[in-house]
Amino acid sequence: MTPRIAILGAGPSGLAQLRAFESARKKDPGSIPDIVCYEKQGDLGGMWNYTWRTGLDQYGEPVHGSMYRFLWSNGPKECLEFADYSFEEHFGRPIPSYPPRAVLHDYILGRVDQDDVRKYIRFDTAVRRVETVPSGSVGPDRFAVTVADQRSGRLETELFDDVVVATGHFSTPNAPHFPGIESFPGRVLHAHDFRDAREFTGKRLLLVGSSYSAEDIGTQCFKYGAAEVTFSYRSAPMGHDWPAGMVEVPLLTEVDGSTVRFADGTDREVDAIILCTGYRHHFPFLPDELTLRTNNRLYPRGIYKGVVSQANSHLFFLGMQDQYFTFNMFDAQAWFVRDVVLGRIELPDHDGRERDIDHWREHEENLRTATEEIDFQAAYIRDLVDRTDYPEFHVEKQGELFKQWKHDKKNDIMGYRNCSYASTLTGSIAPPLHDEWMNILDDSALSFLANDFGTGRSAAPRKVTPIGRHRAARSAAVPAERSS
Amino acid sequence: MTPRIAILGAGPSGLAQLRAFESARKKDPGSIPDIVCYEKQGDLGGMWNYTWRTGLDQYGEPVHGSMYRFLWSNGPKECLEFADYSFEEHFGRPIPSYPPRAVLHDYILGRVDQDDVRKYIRFDTAVRRVETVPSGSVGPDRFAVTVADQRSGRLETELFDDVVVATGHFSTPNAPHFPGIESFPGRVLHAHDFRDAREFTGKRLLLVGSSYSAEDIGTQCFKYGAAEVTFSYRSAPMGHDWPAGMVEVPLLTEVDGSTVRFADGTDREVDAIILCTGYRHHFPFLPDELTLRTNNRLYPRGIYKGVVSQANSHLFFLGMQDQYFTFNMFDAQAWFVRDVVLGRIELPDHDGRERDIDHWREHEENLRTATEEIDFQAAYIRDLVDRTDYPEFHVEKQGELFKQWKHDKKNDIMGYRNCSYASTLTGSIAPPLHDEWMNILDDSALSFLANDFGTGRSAAPRKVTPIGRHRAARSAAVPAERSS
Repeated sequence: MTPRIAILGAGPSGLAQLRAFESARKKDPGSIPDIVCYEKQGDLGGMWNYTWRTGLDQYGEPVHGSMYRFLWSNGPKECLEFADYSFEEHFGRPIPSYPPRAVLHDYILGRVDQDDVRKYIRFDTAVRRVETVPSGSVGPDRFAVTVADQRSGRLETELFDDVVVATGHFSTPNAPHFPGIESFPGRVLHAHDFRDAREFTGKRLLLVGSSYSAEDIGTQCFKYGAAEVTFSYRSAPMGHDWPAGMVEVPLLTEVDGSTVRFADGTDREVDAIILCTGYRHHFPFLPDELTLRTNNRLYPRGIYKGVVSQANSHLFFLGMQDQYFTFNMFDAQAWFVRDVVLGRIELPDHDGRERDIDHWREHEENLRTATEEIDFQAAYIRDLVDRTDYPEFHVEKQGELFKQWKHDKKNDIMGYRNCSYASTLTGSIAPPLHDEWMNILDDSALSFLANDFGTGRSAAPRKVTPIGRHRAARSAAVPAERSS
Repeated sequence: MTPRIAILGAGPSGLAQLRAFESARKKDPGSIPDIVCYEKQGDLGGMWNYTWRTGLDQYGEPVHGSMYRFLWSNGPKECLEFADYSFEEHFGRPIPSYPPRAVLHDYILGRVDQDDVRKYIRFDTAVRRVETVPSGSVGPDRFAVTVADQRSGRLETELFDDVVVATGHFSTPNAPHFPGIESFPGRVLHAHDFRDAREFTGKRLLLVGSSYSAEDIGTQCFKYGAAEVTFSYRSAPMGHDWPAGMVEVPLLTEVDGSTVRFADGTDREVDAIILCTGYRHHFPFLPDELTLRTNNRLYPRGIYKGVVSQANSHLFFLGMQDQYFTFNMFDAQAWFVRDVVLGRIELPDHDGRERDIDHWREHEENLRTATEEIDFQAAYIRDLVDRTDYPEFHVEKQGELFKQWKHDKKNDIMGYRNCSYASTLTGSIAPPLHDEWMNILDDSALSFLANDFGTGRSAAPRKVTPIGRHRAARSAAVPAERSS
């Protein structure tokens, strides 16, 4: 009997897994298992599939997306270029290093459509639970995966030999309580629910947090006319050279009406509070014995080579690390997982795997600087890539680009997106943006790609995100409104 | 072996069920089953337990509360008075007919504390699933209830003979898509996420919907200084005599930037869109064969006497009806369920129950006016009350109060909360509010109860909602913030 594998999620990680198998299938059609990919949303792309919804979706499931309008890549596209599909190939010409969300989404979809992987995906299907089914002496345990078909509203359970968890870890907000926040007279939201900076034009904002969400949402809001942006940090400030109107203060201690007070005894008046306090690894569909318990870090415990569950070596996790590298790291992981599933890579025994995890983790715990962290993640990816037939890509060169990016961002937090980098695939240096990033208010793919960026060639996006079509389909599945 | 019963939810319905059993226990301690009540939130009160959170809670579970600040009862308190616990008894003097949320919450807590039911409740415990466990020839099937203990992050499964679903049906938003809404440049939210009207001071609002949520949120926002409130209806307008600045228009057909267009061809500019498009009955923890599928109506199919599941007569649902009556209807249902569980009420066979459902449903489908609907629900409650030892209360008299309320609201949508009604328990006519409702901006229990309402007696609330204590406990359970 052909083995069966379930892939949970069709975002960048899940799509990488589908492409990894599809690549093996093309070489030897009989070599791969039967694949079912369950996707909660109505289209692929995961986090990159923008939704206007917040909180719960049209089926009552938690909204996956934390993406907001006017999000531009906060790292160079040259650092997330797929090893076998350059941006230049996709767009037919060079484009700038920091594209807006819709352009990156277009690139992801284009890469996916190179392979015919949509056929594996069941959309509008939420995973409710994964259980181990003992098979006695017949063979290894199997997994019973129960999903809710949202269109029919029915539950279904199917058996699988392997399960890949590719559900991401930037969807479940971590939102601490601060004294008095329940009486604040303006909007209080977590970054997960942030959608449109123009809602905050003219407002005085407090952003609690000092990582990517705070940095980027604060920057966006300032760009779109927020009156003031105050960042509150717990451990250390971001330390950027902020323009007038943006400031960093210590941790929020109390909210009193519209007054917010900080650990240094200062206070100020604000109109809205955005909690940029991070996300939780959250797997409500996994039983205790299979779940992954970790915070957001470069080397979580419990997964060999960052992907194979120590609880059950037929269970895999993709992309659960804190990330410098993204799309191509997911690829490296997916190719490795594929080869474990296909028996092409033999796993050490449990203790051997644990020793390997210990080794990497010890290294990770001693990392002190961003440079060291980047080198560490590059070494991790190199370790994976060298074990599979994933096309060679220049992990270490991309690591150097990350270091340059860190430098450029430190140098000019409001202007680093005007910088250009060379593709490690094509060698081309990206053309500059058509205007200073701070001046570009329209982030649509159409508007961005209408520019020729000095190449003499402009173009419409190759792949237009089929939001309209899928939205219409989903909307039709929603029952008539009811009175409340 | 003592039978075991699980009660899912400790809101008004679940608390009614606990009190029903506690009342039986006081008369005969050996008569009741072992009870476990699972409550997702950190305190009791369900919807009345205000939370500042929206979307997902601190544990990643969907937020239960749809309650907002400045919510005042939108029906006379005399219509939701418990048959054996008058408002006058609780507060030590008469209070006005339309109290704010915190005062009603105080009353609910006070009623609960009359009985010692907290001992049955496991807080911060989310129900993940209910499964039928066949018991072969030994007896009826049992239920395996799996819950997540949010503090420990662990799953637990326990067996029960009976399960009461008291999780409410005003927590899962029904939010249809409207063309272009994804590009609207302001906040788009469902009523479920509405918290503080002052966020919308000076704004032009579009509220989609024509039921209680639209009516009340629109009224609140106007009271707190919204510049304009536009209601968009699908079938029919509410038809109130709105003040200048509030208007009803036909269904929203398109959103184009900040312009919203309607079915009559008109359009206007708005700053925020609130979807008051109702809620879904949503039981993600129930398998298909046990779930209840219904829209919001006075007599859902599938539950005998509105409470006993036709799929399994050891499974019960409370409060799943559209509601004129609330707290005391839940009481009537809970007493009935208790007596079925205790074998004091014998159920007809499946077909007999189905015929009874058909009978009521046929009647329900022929209701034409609010008056008929009120009489229908009163008759339904009367039917339940007469079968148990629930203290006599004046269902029909309260029905008459509902009709008066309908009239008063029609007469003056912005001022009906200034009206007074007589308690069916004490006969006292409620004193008037200390000022016109439109002028009272502070809705705290402390501020409200500081007034003597002409009685010469003012008082602090008897039971202050222990928000501070519980919040602190929950906050401590939240792990350290993580970077995003």
